[in-house]
Amino acid sequence: MKLSTNILKLIEALQVLPGIGPKSAKRMALFLLTSDTNKALNISDALKTSISTIQQCEKCYVLNENEICDICSSAERDNKIMCVVETTSDLYSIEETGEYKGKYFVLNGLLSPIDNIGTEELKIKKLLLLIKDRNVSEVILALNTTLEGEATSYYILDKLKEDNLKITRIAQGVPAGGDLNYVDNATLRRALSYRTEIK
Amino acid sequence: MKLSTNILKLIEALQVLPGIGPKSAKRMALFLLTSDTNKALNISDALKTSISTIQQCEKCYVLNENEICDICSSAERDNKIMCVVETTSDLYSIEETGEYKGKYFVLNGLLSPIDNIGTEELKIKKLLLLIKDRNVSEVILALNTTLEGEATSYYILDKLKEDNLKITRIAQGVPAGGDLNYVDNATLRRALSYRTEIK
Repeated sequence: MKLSTNILKLIEALQVLPGIGPKSAKRMALFLLTSDTNKALNISDALKTSISTIQQCEKCYVLNENEICDICSSAERDNKIMCVVETTSDLYSIEETGEYKGKYFVLNGLLSPIDNIGTEELKIKKLLLLIKDRNVSEVILALNTTLEGEATSYYILDKLKEDNLKITRIAQGVPAGGDLNYVDNATLRRALSYRTEIK
Repeated sequence: MKLSTNILKLIEALQVLPGIGPKSAKRMALFLLTSDTNKALNISDALKTSISTIQQCEKCYVLNENEICDICSSAERDNKIMCVVETTSDLYSIEETGEYKGKYFVLNGLLSPIDNIGTEELKIKKLLLLIKDRNVSEVILALNTTLEGEATSYYILDKLKEDNLKITRIAQGVPAGGDLNYVDNATLRRALSYRTEIK
């Protein structure tokens, strides 16, 4: 005997989620069908609603409910500073710090030849146009420090180096509240080489 | 600025999934909204379809498409042997071995006072009735060897011990292909005490 077709279809559909393999998808599907069905209906409805209402901002490509997002259309945010992030989630992590008053550009991905993500997919041309258009004076690169993140940072750096622009990247070092015993070698090496003077 | 309400709603809905906390739910939601929306629609539709077509078998409570499941209604399966499992998933894991020709009872949970799951929720009365009804001669307990699994096994054992029944449990020992270096103490202790004679 095999699992019912509709359960198998649900398991297959759930497997597209990041970090979810066949075993986790099976566990999720059976959990949803065993427990209160309202939970499953909630997910189904929330997906439908958000697909039909959420779009990428035409300027910065953040996921939001408007054609032009609140940050891009805000007069209170500094048009001259642009922070480049990978995802909508990263943008809101930076917003949560309350430190940043400039604008953003969301790449919605990183250069990754293996996944067929090239410069076209990341809309880097649009980024360069927006920088010119807004007469940006500082570009902050706030990408992951993974291989793909570094490659993307260097690609953007290369495209911008001839313009008269200040280009910065967020600091690398030991995390706040970090125990040096648990910090990896590469991080510690960077924390040392980017050490700052105590004034 | 905050994430759009509909994205937040989706993140909240996804958090009911087992093993999914706020961070994973956020990652999933933004992944679904960033990538091909068909993937998200697929999940939404598969959930709707399975909720409306999948039900618990009236006899053994397995999740399936019929009122009485294929196994319960099969004349080829041995009515006299009943294997008690926790989940629909466990049932199909046993089916995949191709070794078992009896019938099943799915508890859809384990005794767990912390989660308010008592004997009522597990339909143990229905289990006892079905055992009488089918004139079962052997009950195989195939529950997890966790604290909740063991407690449930002992509870069922206690309810059945006065009937003239053979009650067995699946063997505990080292897993197939297992390296003894990586087997925990409790498993090894049981593997020793349940050792079998080589004939």
